[in-house]
Amino acid sequence: MKNQQIVLNERPVGIPQPMHFSATSNEIDLSPGEGQIAIKNLYLSIDPAMRGWVSLEENYLPPVEIGEVMRSIAVGEVIQSNHPNFVKGDCVYGMFGWQEYCVVDVATPMLRKVNPNIAPVSTALGALGPNGLTAYLALHEIGQIKSGDTVLISTAAGGVGSIAGQIAKLMGCTCIGLTGSDEKVALCLEEFGYDHAINYKTCNNLEDKIRELAPQGINVFFDNTSGHIADSVYPALALNARVIQVGTAAIDNWETSPSGPRRDRYVLTKRLTIAGFVILDYIAKFPETLAQLAHLFQEGKLNYKESITDGLENAPMALTNLYEGLNKGKQLIRIC
Amino acid sequence: MKNQQIVLNERPVGIPQPMHFSATSNEIDLSPGEGQIAIKNLYLSIDPAMRGWVSLEENYLPPVEIGEVMRSIAVGEVIQSNHPNFVKGDCVYGMFGWQEYCVVDVATPMLRKVNPNIAPVSTALGALGPNGLTAYLALHEIGQIKSGDTVLISTAAGGVGSIAGQIAKLMGCTCIGLTGSDEKVALCLEEFGYDHAINYKTCNNLEDKIRELAPQGINVFFDNTSGHIADSVYPALALNARVIQVGTAAIDNWETSPSGPRRDRYVLTKRLTIAGFVILDYIAKFPETLAQLAHLFQEGKLNYKESITDGLENAPMALTNLYEGLNKGKQLIRIC
Repeated sequence: MKNQQIVLNERPVGIPQPMHFSATSNEIDLSPGEGQIAIKNLYLSIDPAMRGWVSLEENYLPPVEIGEVMRSIAVGEVIQSNHPNFVKGDCVYGMFGWQEYCVVDVATPMLRKVNPNIAPVSTALGALGPNGLTAYLALHEIGQIKSGDTVLISTAAGGVGSIAGQIAKLMGCTCIGLTGSDEKVALCLEEFGYDHAINYKTCNNLEDKIRELAPQGINVFFDNTSGHIADSVYPALALNARVIQVGTAAIDNWETSPSGPRRDRYVLTKRLTIAGFVILDYIAKFPETLAQLAHLFQEGKLNYKESITDGLENAPMALTNLYEGLNKGKQLIRIC
Repeated sequence: MKNQQIVLNERPVGIPQPMHFSATSNEIDLSPGEGQIAIKNLYLSIDPAMRGWVSLEENYLPPVEIGEVMRSIAVGEVIQSNHPNFVKGDCVYGMFGWQEYCVVDVATPMLRKVNPNIAPVSTALGALGPNGLTAYLALHEIGQIKSGDTVLISTAAGGVGSIAGQIAKLMGCTCIGLTGSDEKVALCLEEFGYDHAINYKTCNNLEDKIRELAPQGINVFFDNTSGHIADSVYPALALNARVIQVGTAAIDNWETSPSGPRRDRYVLTKRLTIAGFVILDYIAKFPETLAQLAHLFQEGKLNYKESITDGLENAPMALTNLYEGLNKGKQLIRIC
């Protein structure tokens, strides 16, 4: 069987562009070995973390090699099974890569079945998958959110941010979102339940605006961006605030060691706690958290938004556009 | 009675210099009111935190006002008492200021008696006082140190650092000290039990040197300095490392918003936890911790070093010299 793939062609400096990837194909034998299943991918995920995955900078996973299929989580359909727990037609989630087909061992980390009766299966890549898990676990495990906290979320309308805002609201927090367009400000307010949302691109003085909206200070900063956006938040943090470093989307390139205002004085005088969140550290908590997210969804308490682009060949461009902030909600590729 | 004092004369930008203070005197009535005691100061403390106390920058205590006696912890002798728990001759510790005499309410925060039979009373300002408390509580409460950790301490031979190194060693950690002269390197190794000590001023590549001494990475970074020194430590931190921001002695001036390399990528990929330590948050733990420190001292397990300068009038110069790193161990002023 011919299998269309997108491989890493060249290592980007900064934001990955379509030229850094190549469309190619290989011949794949779809007969699974013992304990394996063959999968046809349905949806691929486009994630901010991918920039880190294609870089040689130190990271929580080894870099994707040149010539290797681009790493990606995906949702697919089992087309052949050689394991008793899986049958043809099952919907599965896992690290299947930017390609049409794959054959994987069922013991592959993170592989799990997706129940199509709870929500559209694409949500397993977003609200009821890594984005929901990240939002929920980061807010609880590191953010220690509690009712009455004022929570500020950057990339507020994105795949993770949009869920984080809703979960913080459900916990009784006041939520402020930072996002990059008026259209996304409206989404934050109308779809995702934020109390306030700011277009950081058109705001004259972001620091003052945040102070105005949170006169008592920000208790929890869910930081998806780092960079100048975060620089405007630190002075407005409250005593004992928690900063969750979930991503660094506003920094194009860490290889040149970007500079910014030192924060150590805030850390000391405000007794901040800053900690990094990587979802892979919390695998043991996935089942109960996914059940909790599904429950919220079924009760109608969790909105989500997807940007779906058709065609495997469009995955690299969708990734580039993600860093431009052109997506609204979770960016996906649908394989037709 | 005539009372010599040092008052804040002008608000410094950057490191306080003698010209920012004035020697003056007032007339003091040493008859204590109800619940008060009159004190003759014996030793004054010279602390890195003082730069923050005389600045208008946001801090954990309000700024010392122009014309006000310089804030300082001190050890003194009770010369008159109007409270049943204190008698003439008692030795006391408290925030008595840069002056010869004061009359204070015994309910003043932090006021406590000092037992002269355990150790020289001057140690109540250092090893068996705030420095020991800071070292012990910061390492335990924020650093979460445990046997086998590699701990790196900046200002390793200073009042706090020298105690932190010894406590970490007693806990079974490997200790690396950063300090600013070969003489202090020798002190670290010979008096304070460090496994390794580095003169950061003469080291060609501090980051490489730290990596060489800690090939598995630094688990706990006790950061007294911030700035360039800390910049060399972050790349050498281990996964899940804890950074305790205890001070920012290497930054002359926060009012101009100093810049440095952004650390958010390290925070994320290494899952660092960075937190600020201010001793005032742990007052409830002082009695048990002081008892623990006294116990270690009496067992001969705690070395300390004091730099004693005679004369109240020398306090401002001693403070300036502290930021030049000219002290070895705790800097004190003795009032003759």
